[in-house]
Amino acid sequence: MTDDLPNRLREVLDGRWASLRQSARDKLDDRFVTVPGETGPQARERISRLVRQIPAEVGVATGFPAEFGGAGDPGGSMVATEMLAQVDLSLMVKAGVQWGLFGGAVFSLGTRRHHEAWLPRIISGDVLGCFAMTETGHGSDVQRLRTTAVYDPGTESFDLHTPYEAARKDYIGNAARDGRMAVVFAQLIVGERRHGVHAFLVPIRDDAGAPAPGVTIGDAGAKAGLLGVDNGRISFDHVRVPRDMLLDRYGQVAPDGTYTSSIDNDTRRFFTMLGTLVRGRVSVGGSASAAAKSALTIAVRYGETRRQFTAPDSDQEIVLNDYLAHRRKLLTAVARSYAYTFAQEFLVRDLSDALAGGGEVEDRRQRELESRAAGLKAMQTQNATRTIQMCREACGGAGYLAENRLPGLKADTDVFTTFEGDNTVLLQLVGKGLLTGYRDAFGSLDGWGKAAFAAEQVREMVLERTAARTLITRLVDAVPKRGDASVGLTERGWHLSMFEDREKHLLEGAVRRLRRGAETKRDRPFDIFNDVQDHVLEAAQAHVHRIVLEAFTAGVEEATDPETKALLNKVCDLYALSTIEADKGWFLEHERLTPARAKAVTGAVNDLLTELRPRMAALVDGFGIPDAWLHAAILREEGDRQSSMM
Amino acid sequence: MTDDLPNRLREVLDGRWASLRQSARDKLDDRFVTVPGETGPQARERISRLVRQIPAEVGVATGFPAEFGGAGDPGGSMVATEMLAQVDLSLMVKAGVQWGLFGGAVFSLGTRRHHEAWLPRIISGDVLGCFAMTETGHGSDVQRLRTTAVYDPGTESFDLHTPYEAARKDYIGNAARDGRMAVVFAQLIVGERRHGVHAFLVPIRDDAGAPAPGVTIGDAGAKAGLLGVDNGRISFDHVRVPRDMLLDRYGQVAPDGTYTSSIDNDTRRFFTMLGTLVRGRVSVGGSASAAAKSALTIAVRYGETRRQFTAPDSDQEIVLNDYLAHRRKLLTAVARSYAYTFAQEFLVRDLSDALAGGGEVEDRRQRELESRAAGLKAMQTQNATRTIQMCREACGGAGYLAENRLPGLKADTDVFTTFEGDNTVLLQLVGKGLLTGYRDAFGSLDGWGKAAFAAEQVREMVLERTAARTLITRLVDAVPKRGDASVGLTERGWHLSMFEDREKHLLEGAVRRLRRGAETKRDRPFDIFNDVQDHVLEAAQAHVHRIVLEAFTAGVEEATDPETKALLNKVCDLYALSTIEADKGWFLEHERLTPARAKAVTGAVNDLLTELRPRMAALVDGFGIPDAWLHAAILREEGDRQSSMM
Repeated sequence: MTDDLPNRLREVLDGRWASLRQSARDKLDDRFVTVPGETGPQARERISRLVRQIPAEVGVATGFPAEFGGAGDPGGSMVATEMLAQVDLSLMVKAGVQWGLFGGAVFSLGTRRHHEAWLPRIISGDVLGCFAMTETGHGSDVQRLRTTAVYDPGTESFDLHTPYEAARKDYIGNAARDGRMAVVFAQLIVGERRHGVHAFLVPIRDDAGAPAPGVTIGDAGAKAGLLGVDNGRISFDHVRVPRDMLLDRYGQVAPDGTYTSSIDNDTRRFFTMLGTLVRGRVSVGGSASAAAKSALTIAVRYGETRRQFTAPDSDQEIVLNDYLAHRRKLLTAVARSYAYTFAQEFLVRDLSDALAGGGEVEDRRQRELESRAAGLKAMQTQNATRTIQMCREACGGAGYLAENRLPGLKADTDVFTTFEGDNTVLLQLVGKGLLTGYRDAFGSLDGWGKAAFAAEQVREMVLERTAARTLITRLVDAVPKRGDASVGLTERGWHLSMFEDREKHLLEGAVRRLRRGAETKRDRPFDIFNDVQDHVLEAAQAHVHRIVLEAFTAGVEEATDPETKALLNKVCDLYALSTIEADKGWFLEHERLTPARAKAVTGAVNDLLTELRPRMAALVDGFGIPDAWLHAAILREEGDRQSSMM
Repeated sequence: MTDDLPNRLREVLDGRWASLRQSARDKLDDRFVTVPGETGPQARERISRLVRQIPAEVGVATGFPAEFGGAGDPGGSMVATEMLAQVDLSLMVKAGVQWGLFGGAVFSLGTRRHHEAWLPRIISGDVLGCFAMTETGHGSDVQRLRTTAVYDPGTESFDLHTPYEAARKDYIGNAARDGRMAVVFAQLIVGERRHGVHAFLVPIRDDAGAPAPGVTIGDAGAKAGLLGVDNGRISFDHVRVPRDMLLDRYGQVAPDGTYTSSIDNDTRRFFTMLGTLVRGRVSVGGSASAAAKSALTIAVRYGETRRQFTAPDSDQEIVLNDYLAHRRKLLTAVARSYAYTFAQEFLVRDLSDALAGGGEVEDRRQRELESRAAGLKAMQTQNATRTIQMCREACGGAGYLAENRLPGLKADTDVFTTFEGDNTVLLQLVGKGLLTGYRDAFGSLDGWGKAAFAAEQVREMVLERTAARTLITRLVDAVPKRGDASVGLTERGWHLSMFEDREKHLLEGAVRRLRRGAETKRDRPFDIFNDVQDHVLEAAQAHVHRIVLEAFTAGVEEATDPETKALLNKVCDLYALSTIEADKGWFLEHERLTPARAKAVTGAVNDLLTELRPRMAALVDGFGIPDAWLHAAILREEGDRQSSMM
């Protein structure tokens, strides 16, 4: 039955956490849906209230161990965050700060006594907290942040201090209004020794809401969006923090000041600490895609009813989705949304499975997951920014009105490209991991001297497939290398080998250039990497494109119903071919496409756009977003208006 | 002296209206500068007050004839609007509605008696008014709007009426709060005859601000930006409009209802009426570029002081602008800003010169100017949206804070891509004009049946050069056709011929496909054009790229000082080469670039980015935006913070 096609699509997209997704749809009723056009104070008041009322079934705290009130399902908590993003992005960020970053840091960086003392109250929302890492002067290079925590054995406490204005904690969610506690990242100093960045659990307000002694809290003020999130600035004037408030899983300070850690190297230790917080990035990437799906649902549905201009042979006006240019924008974006949904699902599954082992994750595996989280966060947030912008424009003037939701989606998600890791920095991290085969992903987030050195040693790039390895190997092996004109344009094996080939070639080229630079630019070590920066970023993006296509390929296989599977295969064709088309400059330049075949790719994309035209509405319905959540006036009214017009 | 390089650049960029630009810089003091983080009501109150206080020297009304209080300088009024856009975009839109659209319609569509009765009070700001064209149901296809004006000879008045909800006037600036009058566009009906869309001058509020009898005014509500503009919705319930309130320059109704017009065809008459309003598009395009320049100035200056990550051989942190990827984004956008500045200057000059003739502008010339205005509006607003977004991201978290101005610039300009003509529709208009050689640019804005027919008759495309024709011909003739590898990558003649060749080939291809479609798709006339829509849009964009490069080439020639000229030539190289690089897929696909030369283009762009690195700050300083107008906290504070950090 074609009629329930949206439901069948939704089942495939919902994946492993389908029941949790359905709980969110059921439990997050009208009360939780975003309110366009609020003032800042109204939004903060509403979100502050709602964040404590999120029904447990939604699962924001499901990642914590059962003994403290969770369900030991970290994948579920990432999915829950993503669902909140379709209801209200301020609510998602506020919840993400509370249970993801703040609670997550106490859990991941703290030890048993911290867990017992704090997790129940954090999980219940009785204690709202902040994640105070970023400073005004250091956002991307957090390893160099300037807040200090000097240990005093006499009082068995740390002296937490902000030495410069640029060292104040900045952009901190939950700080300006609601936070009572904060996990504060600071340089640990004992005597003459600096031990690098550590995390401290610090009360920042008393029960009445007044700042704690020595703590100064400012308001980050008006922002582009996320009006419901109270971002603030925190400074410390020699605040005394008791010794047991150091979150000491990775580094301990004895009463006499003796420092111990299972990880000797300060940098490596810090990046291990950061690594445990990878879930934040996963949640942001997933939330960005969730918001893009809201925007696409609004724009596609509007495009099904909005008419403009008559056909040459008719008095009937044409619906927007019938225009090729309109379809090209919207349908290719719908295909990308499907692709990212599968990529996100497999990332959450893999991360969840790795964590489920209970013990430590093998180093190389941990780094691959971190890299994938970073890459998918960057590409999903970039895609969301572009897609939501495009959807707002596709709705014309209506897309500029707050009542139609698109301005809020755009403004709220806008910060995602630069928070939880700036996208450029994250893609560099991905590139670096690839260049070194994850052998030395530690070191400063840039630290390109080392990467150049490691690249010198690389002999051959081996790409590791990330999903459905057997299937993908079979598909790729089934097409001739450097697929020629005889290979069908919709052969998945050809798409996969095009994506793999591009990534491999870009990486090998970068290695070659880094090697050459390492020889010729010994006196300008910064330039060795910097001159190749655009090349490395391109390689990182090609890598993400490849793992996304692998995930889409694997995801299609999970559809059991033939009609659904056939449709998903077409959507995957559109994703693969429109991605190749968008980068045809590279493929032509490197003679992976002949001019004739490049033109044929454009023709094939247009054919798919025509073929999928009747399925446009079903494809967005398949995202499974409840009507109440979409909350756009144009969807409620357009039908009536049209009927009175025709 | 290199020290005053910014001043010398500014002199060239300021162009013919340099003194007017300087007046705006001098007269628009702190009072007028935008206030980030205001609520909607605060912004409306402030802008409503300020719009009546704009000093005469700024020139918003300078386009009207001297006898009514202007200076007969329409170019000056467009430049004045553009300058306002750097101070406050709501103020620019509010002024644009009042003196550009409302006043402009009374002047262009009205006759002597309207001018004498109303222009002095409009120019002084005593009567604030609206331009009520767009309806909820018809924005792009305004020819089909539904408001009716039925003439009644008995009362010698029109019955102005909104027959459906979808026919209400929507998004109308000045309507929700301040407007007393409106120019209302409606279908004129006399007896059984419909005469197409005409404009009527209608009081919508009394002196106390209450809606006039039969007029219902609503508020468009919260918007993404432009909070200071009171956009509203107006409906008419059989409102009686006296006969002499028809703006009757192009169509007259005698007391007995006899209709006369110098233009027989209703469609042609309507498009002539629209054509007189082309200045609105010119102002929006210029304002978009002006706002992009504000954003670039903020991002480049911040990138000169903001440091992040240390170099491998140093403890000194690296300024953002030293990173290749950062420079690639910002400097190529600076080059585009220079390019669009010259293109806008030449458009305003040509339009101004055409209008200065006093009489009617020759048809073909009029259509070329309309097309250029449409194309440059589309490309400048698209570029502004992307550039401001990029600048906000280039400033990281700081770029998300209202105090740093970028969120406001983004949100305020966002509507430009879809108002005063949706960009897709405008580019179609450009494409259509090119395909028909401007022979039949009338007809419905799409009306593609006719365009396909006209295209059938096209034998050879002849491109008309728009600036410095002799110089450009000489440059193009100096390089071999289909420039081969022996031609230097920075030969302007090669760039010009690459741009021309692309446009010509795209147009010829579109003609060929339309002709073939006209034969094979006789039963599906809509598809004849629709199947080629993406191709036509691409041709239109290539056309705009070409006229922009021509303008840049001509603009560089106007620099008299050798150092300035040499620098502008480099910036022009960067514009040309980065534009070719961005579309290298096309050039390779059509064998205008070999793979080796395509790679060389990328190398040349990177070389230019390095070469221009020391001039980055001077290039944005050359935009000549007063510090007070930039109004971004990061520019005021970053210096202090850094000095305390280092």
